[in-house]
Amino acid sequence: MADHKLTFLPSNTTVEVPTGALVSEAIRKAGLEVAQPCGGQGRCGRCAVILHGPGARRRSTVRLSPQDIDAGYALACQTVVEGDLSITLPEQARIQRRMVTDKTAARVELPFVYDAAMQGVRTFRVYMEEPSLQDNRDDLARIQRALAEAGHPNCEVPLPLVRRLSAALRESDWAPWVVLETDNGSRPNGPARLIDIGPDPIEPLALAVDIGTTTVSTYLVDLTTGAVLGSAAEYNGQIAFGEDVISRIMYAGKEGGLADLTARVRATMTELLERIRLRTGVTPDRIHKVALAGNTTMVHLFLGLPPGSIRLAPYIPTLNQPPVYTAGELGLDLNPLASVDCLPGVASYVGADITAGVLACTLADSEELTLFIDVGTNGEIVLGTRDWMVTCACSAGPAFEGAGVVNGMRATEGAIEEVWINSTTYEPTFRVIGDVAPRGLCGSGLISLLAELFVTGVVDRGGSVKLDLNTPRVRQGDHGPEYVVAWAAETASGQDIVLTKVDVDNLMRAKAAIYAGFSVLASSVGVDLAHVQRILVGGSFGKYINVEKAVQIGLLPDVPWDRFQFLGNTAILGTYRAVLSREERERIRQIAGQMTYLELSADNSFYDAFTAALFLPHTEIVRFPSVAEVWERNTSRESA
Amino acid sequence: MADHKLTFLPSNTTVEVPTGALVSEAIRKAGLEVAQPCGGQGRCGRCAVILHGPGARRRSTVRLSPQDIDAGYALACQTVVEGDLSITLPEQARIQRRMVTDKTAARVELPFVYDAAMQGVRTFRVYMEEPSLQDNRDDLARIQRALAEAGHPNCEVPLPLVRRLSAALRESDWAPWVVLETDNGSRPNGPARLIDIGPDPIEPLALAVDIGTTTVSTYLVDLTTGAVLGSAAEYNGQIAFGEDVISRIMYAGKEGGLADLTARVRATMTELLERIRLRTGVTPDRIHKVALAGNTTMVHLFLGLPPGSIRLAPYIPTLNQPPVYTAGELGLDLNPLASVDCLPGVASYVGADITAGVLACTLADSEELTLFIDVGTNGEIVLGTRDWMVTCACSAGPAFEGAGVVNGMRATEGAIEEVWINSTTYEPTFRVIGDVAPRGLCGSGLISLLAELFVTGVVDRGGSVKLDLNTPRVRQGDHGPEYVVAWAAETASGQDIVLTKVDVDNLMRAKAAIYAGFSVLASSVGVDLAHVQRILVGGSFGKYINVEKAVQIGLLPDVPWDRFQFLGNTAILGTYRAVLSREERERIRQIAGQMTYLELSADNSFYDAFTAALFLPHTEIVRFPSVAEVWERNTSRESA
Repeated sequence: MADHKLTFLPSNTTVEVPTGALVSEAIRKAGLEVAQPCGGQGRCGRCAVILHGPGARRRSTVRLSPQDIDAGYALACQTVVEGDLSITLPEQARIQRRMVTDKTAARVELPFVYDAAMQGVRTFRVYMEEPSLQDNRDDLARIQRALAEAGHPNCEVPLPLVRRLSAALRESDWAPWVVLETDNGSRPNGPARLIDIGPDPIEPLALAVDIGTTTVSTYLVDLTTGAVLGSAAEYNGQIAFGEDVISRIMYAGKEGGLADLTARVRATMTELLERIRLRTGVTPDRIHKVALAGNTTMVHLFLGLPPGSIRLAPYIPTLNQPPVYTAGELGLDLNPLASVDCLPGVASYVGADITAGVLACTLADSEELTLFIDVGTNGEIVLGTRDWMVTCACSAGPAFEGAGVVNGMRATEGAIEEVWINSTTYEPTFRVIGDVAPRGLCGSGLISLLAELFVTGVVDRGGSVKLDLNTPRVRQGDHGPEYVVAWAAETASGQDIVLTKVDVDNLMRAKAAIYAGFSVLASSVGVDLAHVQRILVGGSFGKYINVEKAVQIGLLPDVPWDRFQFLGNTAILGTYRAVLSREERERIRQIAGQMTYLELSADNSFYDAFTAALFLPHTEIVRFPSVAEVWERNTSRESA
Repeated sequence: MADHKLTFLPSNTTVEVPTGALVSEAIRKAGLEVAQPCGGQGRCGRCAVILHGPGARRRSTVRLSPQDIDAGYALACQTVVEGDLSITLPEQARIQRRMVTDKTAARVELPFVYDAAMQGVRTFRVYMEEPSLQDNRDDLARIQRALAEAGHPNCEVPLPLVRRLSAALRESDWAPWVVLETDNGSRPNGPARLIDIGPDPIEPLALAVDIGTTTVSTYLVDLTTGAVLGSAAEYNGQIAFGEDVISRIMYAGKEGGLADLTARVRATMTELLERIRLRTGVTPDRIHKVALAGNTTMVHLFLGLPPGSIRLAPYIPTLNQPPVYTAGELGLDLNPLASVDCLPGVASYVGADITAGVLACTLADSEELTLFIDVGTNGEIVLGTRDWMVTCACSAGPAFEGAGVVNGMRATEGAIEEVWINSTTYEPTFRVIGDVAPRGLCGSGLISLLAELFVTGVVDRGGSVKLDLNTPRVRQGDHGPEYVVAWAAETASGQDIVLTKVDVDNLMRAKAAIYAGFSVLASSVGVDLAHVQRILVGGSFGKYINVEKAVQIGLLPDVPWDRFQFLGNTAILGTYRAVLSREERERIRQIAGQMTYLELSADNSFYDAFTAALFLPHTEIVRFPSVAEVWERNTSRESA
């Protein structure tokens, strides 16, 4: 076998290896290092290198995108040397950054063309005759006639502007600038509504808001150009009264609880607006329009509606399609005449965040059979095409938010967000948010860890920890069998970070609930999940899920990688589109009306599907062919 | 000449007098007394007696109504004995009471037939299906469907009721009582609006409000029956910031002034509602509808609109036809969903009090040429028939309110409200409000006094006081020539109460302004004031004017007594009708649209008419034939 000369950059180290050697072996032979947290199984992607020339063959390209491959990337543990070539060993940090953003699902920029004619707010200057003894029409009649001549008959002039009218007309010398809401949200087909007036030009601005149970996100938008002038996100201040929707609803039932919760989320909005003001100089009184999404409970709490009946069968909210209110009516700290359009939801557990998400994710524009999922505290799922949609919500519980897990935590600094386990040594490698000593495991870290434990054989398909493995990482702990992810010496708390059998059970119930949702939705319309052409992952949680790991534990269906798309916070994206276009607002109403809601608690097949999903990855492993392959390879090697 | 035996009751005194003797002479001959403040000229009506039998002939029946004559009343100084008869001498107090209520103009009850179908508020019970997992429409959609089935599609449900909806539906076991505004004022031809909901029957109530510059009046009305459940009136709390419209407008221009004035009138309303609550037990939150009248400035101040431009040429208000607001929007202490319909005005100085007055006074229903006048701080005049109407406002100034007159005061306790002067002795007799020592002269007292001074020859037609009369009542005072109405010894202050030449000039300017208004209005449409078929006197001031005296000074046109009708506070009467009927609300809008406003300050003929009216009663005395007769009789007697 001929030897080939490999040159490693940037150190310019050379080494000779025979045909068929792995690049990872050559690196070690050259005295250099490459990370291999998965034990060289081609699972973690951490050993990526850049090939300069054709002298090597990639056996597997897991975790590499076509763009990566074009750029020369290859996994050192999965690449066979076949000739001379130069290889760049990227800095570890660089790989880390790539891993953070690339994951395995493609991140997709959603298409949206801004059309100023569609946004429904118009600003222009109105010229009118100065009054005289002969022409003594009152100020209101005068401006209404001028607006009628400008194409807006019977324009509504709200009280706060009637109060300013006398000064505005005279100070502007009978030629004020006006801002009109031509798409008068509160009277969709009615006359326009005056929302601002003054002697100087006024730049109409809008706000898109997504109220998540955990995080509130806002975009400040220029209605003239569609540009996002600033954005800000912050934890929902209601977290102090409970981490999930159910505990908020229970708190709302207490004396003064509802008022507390409404005040908290508004205080969060005020804080975000203040942050935006510091960055952009835009004060809240300049905001002329708001579109708002959130799950049904969040919208209820924002509007001050008691959410109690959402929690109890038959799960009836006060409303799914809120009328358009004004900021003044709601007591918000914006221009009091700004219309506040809370986007429509479908049911108590499929809210406006989902309809906005469907608008943004293009599901409703496509003929392709598409599955849209938004996994947060709950998992909401939509299956369909532009012609039909079914939807359901699965109460995944808070396990993926880090709650109900011994060392669980939210995805903040110190959270282990991704884990790789060496399939030979069972030693873990992990990445921590903020690159600090670990404090616990967040949702994506838990999914990643459970997947690794499963594919490396530390836990079996039923979720039991194999205590007989030859590693100190596996042990009988205070809470039963457990796996030690980080030893006390390396953690922030000075205590071991572990995943217990109880934690595993909780995670399995959570993932089973969501997968059962997929199954029931699909069988309700007689389609096979394997035929789904696109799986669109939205939501803040989706943003950090490693799809490969999520498939391995059976949380997501096992379809080819290229069918997955990671879309980020689709709720805020859809809301941004809605605030900019009456067509999109109309579209979202159509979407809400088009969606058929399946109440899983009323569906006997859900329990069966849930039970069947309480395995890793599932009772019927044939549903997960790629996972079966990895798992069987490991199991057979183990037994060999 | 045969003597006739007269018997006076109740004393049973008898006396014999010849044919042709006056009853007043017979009374004196019998040693009895009868009041004759006017000196026996048949002007004051204070010597009224009751004749029992046909033995006497009435020469004049001034101040007696046909009902009075049927009941046997006669004026002792104007009744000639022609046979035997019994005569009752009523107690003085009884005559006084009659004079207070009867005046000379007939008091008319205005026709209004209540039609429950017209009031635009409907209350009924709604029955709906309880939700289930199979029928999981939200609460709002559920009640909207039930309301649609009851004939009210797309019913608007305001935010405060959306907030109560969940509890209301469940507490009522899915059969709540609702109150609907079917005549949705804010969207006249739009869908109905839900204004109340609860588990128990709700009685819809309404409030009619008239905000006068001086007095605020309210009626609490049962919308089911049209009955007035309670009423209350009180001085407008804004009086602290100025007595007339102009001083209020000036105060509103100061820092914080507008807010002060708005708060004051609302505080007055709150006080009136509290008074009504104490009497009826009805709390303000049970009021579901409001109609409100007032002059244009009062409506501006109530709504919080800056009134500054009302005062300056070309006298343009912010609005004449306010949209319908809700009590919540206005910050009123009522049911926040109550619609508040500020009735439409015509111009800065012809406001909703006048359009409501025209509605109430039947001018717009009749073919008869009618003059409607409302004399308060300003004098507003409407001339027309049901087919056309012209209107103007005369800035009478505050003289009739007692301001700008040395001993002027408002019509409260201690005010001299009517005066009679003996044409021989020039000694006055007067009536004081509350029957206490006099403190000053109110508007009706000033008119009465000026008329008496004129017809008894104390002042001449130019308004000069005749200092050469043989009476200590006439003298040169500190402010020029003056007449002493009450000596220091009889007054509350211990100072003489006088009317000076300067006061007379002020009063003459005030009455000239109003009469000039009549003249200009009449000539603008080419009619003669003498052809006016009805003169309808409204307003709180009109209530106390003695029409005869007002004609004598040339304030009112000289037409036969029976053409005058005294209607009381026509503004509140019209408002009461408006709150009860959408037909009447529509009618008042038509009336406002139908009225042609004449801006007197833009009319050259006004100055001429004003100058011509600066005489007693007028430069052209032929316009006042009845006054000319009385005056010439006195003057000729004087010179005889």
